[in-house]
Amino acid sequence: MSKENDKMDVALQGRRKFLNTAAIGGLAGVGLSVGLAGCNKGEKGAASSAGASAAGEHAGAAPHIAPGQLDDYYGLWSGGHSGEMRVLGLPSGREIRRIPVFNHDALTGWGITNESKKVLGADASGKVPYITGDTHHVHGSYADGTYDGKYAWINDKLHSRLARIRLDTFECDKITEIPNVQGFHGIFPDKRDPVDPKINHTTRVFCGSEFSIPLPNDGKDAADPSKYHSLFTCVDAETMEVRWQVLIDGNCDLVASSFDGKLAATNQYNTEMGVMYEEMMSAEKDACLFFNIERIEAAVKAGKTKTYGSSKVPVVDGTKAANPDPKTSLVAYVPVPKNPHGVNASPDGKYFICSGKLSPTATVIDLSLVHKFFAGELKDPFEAVVAEPEIGLGPLHTAFDGRGNAFTTLFLDSQIVKWNVDAAIKAFKDKNVQYVVDRLDVQYQPGHLNASMSETREADGKWLGVGCKFSKDRFLPVGPLHPENEQLIDISGEKMKLVADHPVWPEPHDFVIVRRDKIKTRQVYDLDEFPLAVKDAAQSGVERNGNKVTVRMASQAPAFSLRDFKVKKGDEVTLILTNLDKVEDLTHGCGIPKYDINFIVNPQETKSVTFKASKAGVFWIYCTHFCHALHLEMRTRMIVEG
Amino acid sequence: MSKENDKMDVALQGRRKFLNTAAIGGLAGVGLSVGLAGCNKGEKGAASSAGASAAGEHAGAAPHIAPGQLDDYYGLWSGGHSGEMRVLGLPSGREIRRIPVFNHDALTGWGITNESKKVLGADASGKVPYITGDTHHVHGSYADGTYDGKYAWINDKLHSRLARIRLDTFECDKITEIPNVQGFHGIFPDKRDPVDPKINHTTRVFCGSEFSIPLPNDGKDAADPSKYHSLFTCVDAETMEVRWQVLIDGNCDLVASSFDGKLAATNQYNTEMGVMYEEMMSAEKDACLFFNIERIEAAVKAGKTKTYGSSKVPVVDGTKAANPDPKTSLVAYVPVPKNPHGVNASPDGKYFICSGKLSPTATVIDLSLVHKFFAGELKDPFEAVVAEPEIGLGPLHTAFDGRGNAFTTLFLDSQIVKWNVDAAIKAFKDKNVQYVVDRLDVQYQPGHLNASMSETREADGKWLGVGCKFSKDRFLPVGPLHPENEQLIDISGEKMKLVADHPVWPEPHDFVIVRRDKIKTRQVYDLDEFPLAVKDAAQSGVERNGNKVTVRMASQAPAFSLRDFKVKKGDEVTLILTNLDKVEDLTHGCGIPKYDINFIVNPQETKSVTFKASKAGVFWIYCTHFCHALHLEMRTRMIVEG
Repeated sequence: MSKENDKMDVALQGRRKFLNTAAIGGLAGVGLSVGLAGCNKGEKGAASSAGASAAGEHAGAAPHIAPGQLDDYYGLWSGGHSGEMRVLGLPSGREIRRIPVFNHDALTGWGITNESKKVLGADASGKVPYITGDTHHVHGSYADGTYDGKYAWINDKLHSRLARIRLDTFECDKITEIPNVQGFHGIFPDKRDPVDPKINHTTRVFCGSEFSIPLPNDGKDAADPSKYHSLFTCVDAETMEVRWQVLIDGNCDLVASSFDGKLAATNQYNTEMGVMYEEMMSAEKDACLFFNIERIEAAVKAGKTKTYGSSKVPVVDGTKAANPDPKTSLVAYVPVPKNPHGVNASPDGKYFICSGKLSPTATVIDLSLVHKFFAGELKDPFEAVVAEPEIGLGPLHTAFDGRGNAFTTLFLDSQIVKWNVDAAIKAFKDKNVQYVVDRLDVQYQPGHLNASMSETREADGKWLGVGCKFSKDRFLPVGPLHPENEQLIDISGEKMKLVADHPVWPEPHDFVIVRRDKIKTRQVYDLDEFPLAVKDAAQSGVERNGNKVTVRMASQAPAFSLRDFKVKKGDEVTLILTNLDKVEDLTHGCGIPKYDINFIVNPQETKSVTFKASKAGVFWIYCTHFCHALHLEMRTRMIVEG
Repeated sequence: MSKENDKMDVALQGRRKFLNTAAIGGLAGVGLSVGLAGCNKGEKGAASSAGASAAGEHAGAAPHIAPGQLDDYYGLWSGGHSGEMRVLGLPSGREIRRIPVFNHDALTGWGITNESKKVLGADASGKVPYITGDTHHVHGSYADGTYDGKYAWINDKLHSRLARIRLDTFECDKITEIPNVQGFHGIFPDKRDPVDPKINHTTRVFCGSEFSIPLPNDGKDAADPSKYHSLFTCVDAETMEVRWQVLIDGNCDLVASSFDGKLAATNQYNTEMGVMYEEMMSAEKDACLFFNIERIEAAVKAGKTKTYGSSKVPVVDGTKAANPDPKTSLVAYVPVPKNPHGVNASPDGKYFICSGKLSPTATVIDLSLVHKFFAGELKDPFEAVVAEPEIGLGPLHTAFDGRGNAFTTLFLDSQIVKWNVDAAIKAFKDKNVQYVVDRLDVQYQPGHLNASMSETREADGKWLGVGCKFSKDRFLPVGPLHPENEQLIDISGEKMKLVADHPVWPEPHDFVIVRRDKIKTRQVYDLDEFPLAVKDAAQSGVERNGNKVTVRMASQAPAFSLRDFKVKKGDEVTLILTNLDKVEDLTHGCGIPKYDINFIVNPQETKSVTFKASKAGVFWIYCTHFCHALHLEMRTRMIVEG
């Protein structure tokens, strides 16, 4: 470790040393010095609530919701490499919905029904390309600078896919695989159109990709990292088609979008374009990239594009070499300290804040100055930086309370630091200004955090969630794989108050907290939404066309409309099932023993499955979703004649 | 509806009518009268707490666990047709672990790694037979009449499989597919050996199958239900091989085992062997079957067995026709009212309680009298019934507080009824004895319930969980698919107190609540447990044998031991990854973009995957499980040469 770090270790409380066993251990073992740039010794003596909460004190608002009472907020949570999205109620922290997205799910039949396979991109034989996914970021659609409750988007880093979730039914309806990239990580919807003031809602989703690859990635140039590139991508929010991509220098990471619709940004931790981690952190400065959406789309329209491989997506050139003049540049590269992680938009629309990760600072970038850069009125993009407050070790992500304060996770310090943005800007010129308001120990190693309605104009400063990557001793032990700890903090007062530990199946990366009145759901489908619907039990039956057999059936508690049906071994069977029950919450299931099929049909919903009748015998198709006092008796017999 | 039911409807509170919209709706639509046998009009005026709790009162013990505090109990929860098992902390209701079992799981790599595929029964090509499952019942292993914390078992009704979970690592280590059956539903481990008093722990798991099928089920006799049969099965707790099966009249459902090790039982809701639900409920009486384990095993040993189809499992004949003399009979058929659901063993070891489902009664069966039946000392097995208390509509399952009280779910009434077992036995002869102690409305339509340590000699009467099948309005709406509602009730006092609504992803069927000191976990593996372990980073490398390539790699935060490796398009690649980190909770992930592979390695664990290098290019294998400040930088490059 460097001399500077040694000093730092002595200065900090012993707790930090303990915590870092997990967080920075192993580096010594591979002969590497992290080279943490600076420390928080310059902090301006804010009163700290650290320690008190660690001892279990929790004088904040009560997170327990009495039986029969409802939560105040929806939490839309990434499911990490479970491949799913999750919906939590807050403040209770109760998981009220899993939404299968990139994974397969035996309960809903996601990945099993023909309808879900289509969304997942199945080929003509019904094979889906992937059954795994690694979700990181969830963001909702906007109108008028706040959530409109229409859609949420979630990314898959593993296979570079973007999925859309309908917030009326809480189901995934579209998935798009992004070409030319790998390690697609950050996403953010835009908040209005850059040009047309009438379009004040989300129409684009911006996507950042971390890993650089040859273009096209076909094996040529594979061993030559100097030929690797990264792209920034824009997806159409409605069609979910990729609109355009921007070739950049360096890589992307997280993404933010401005309230005026004109700018999107991505932080860049690997300006060096290194392929090994010590190369990736060799430079003292990396960057936050700003994309001028209007100019990019004009360039696309003007055909100043190219394509790679079999992809037809138009790509514009956003590299520094191709953009020497700020007045026409598509991209601004604003320098920020070493390996930043996270870029967040303050709810007043004025600033983007980039965290330092390997620097103990946050970087506050003034968007009006970024606009000035693009107007050619700044000499250097660094002039857009208006503050670099020192806040602690390993700063990653920032949330806002709508009252001018920012909350940043400190991964290495296992803390949240609350700091005042205006004060930090003043302190950039006057070192005597105090900007740190409070600190709170969290358990342990926090990644993302978010506050209720944080990145909207309605940020309300009530609750702060923080996704802790290690839970260690906070829950009953359950073997080598620990849950993560999503902690809940009351931020309504000056001091932060930790009120609850919520264990979660790894690994939520990010989440948003949405006021419950923003989301309007439907509890019952409409038969007319489904072209295959069996609208009347009398339409039930078996139809044969060569060796293709279509079985139409309805469910109505406690019976399927067919008592039995016969097919022949070798047939290709398509079973269509409509749930004719209309009562909210009266879902039926359909399991076919030994045929590896299960799915549910919600009230008035229709689904279908196609399979080969490969085994002769009697197979009791049964309702797998408890529906009625005679649920166990709800069955039909599939007789496969040998 | 029958005249009797009309009277009943008038007599009951209006609430019940509302609730039953979902529960018994639809029957009229298919021209069917349920024929509920009797009602609870004869109840002996117990004071009721129903209503009060529905209004949100909750004066019971607090379920909120302060940050940093631990729960008192492990809840081992079925995941229903999600195919998984879940671990909850109680009283908080927090989910602290999912255990993938019959499903695939992108996070852990269950169904993806070679090790998990082996447990799942993959063929030589690596294809697993099923990716779906429908779990219902979870039970733990016993020693000395209480949980020993060694194993839990969980069934798959869809494909008739039994899985075992190690409770030191909370991972599934064995799965057995049971031959000759369909709709395998109830399970229960035995509690000691029927003969050898030294074996006072679980060595067998009993399994009941609901659906009757031809034997063998090969297409012959498929259209002739008179040729269908059901079997009761015994699986070896250690080897997980099927020891024996018993051919029976009628079907099986739930299962219980006696504390003396001598008896297992299954309730039978389809004595009629009907194939349509109106046939299944035509008889006024069904049965609870008692299996004489010692006699069955003697018959197996004596070779009085047959086999079916390709199965080698010995099957003894337990039908009534083959067992005319109680003194040699393998099975006792004790009559109980109409379509019973649930059979539970009281913690004092004396009674099994069968619920009525379509009868408003519970049936208390005295095990000492069942032994007398097998000794030829009873004229009729019905003489073993010592009480038939009327408790309410739709009784399903019973739990115990260890103080002589039983708690039974009433599906149609949406209530829990607390009743005293001894008082019910007295009331069987003296109609003036009151046995109902309390009633509590639950939300809504409860299925299983269980009390802390209920079916052990250490039943402690502190907490009661109840799995409600419908949650309706109890949580923020999340579209057509509602969560289920696992409610928590404080049963430490005379009156039950509802303290929390816990939403869960459908559909938990059953669960057990285990005192936390019963379970001892391990948080770090041992390298020596894994034959393929890469014990030193220096052993890393690529080994080629024709087109088969083995890649050995280790992970140690924040790096993989290989910076890159090359293979050729078309190679069969086996990647072996050992996590050399030793710190508890320091799990790494391994995701291979575009290759549909993700899995984790916990501290000191080794896993492997085998795949075909079908695409040329650069593929950034990255750590998917947040591990370190430089987690994002933790990658290696797989270069697939075209």
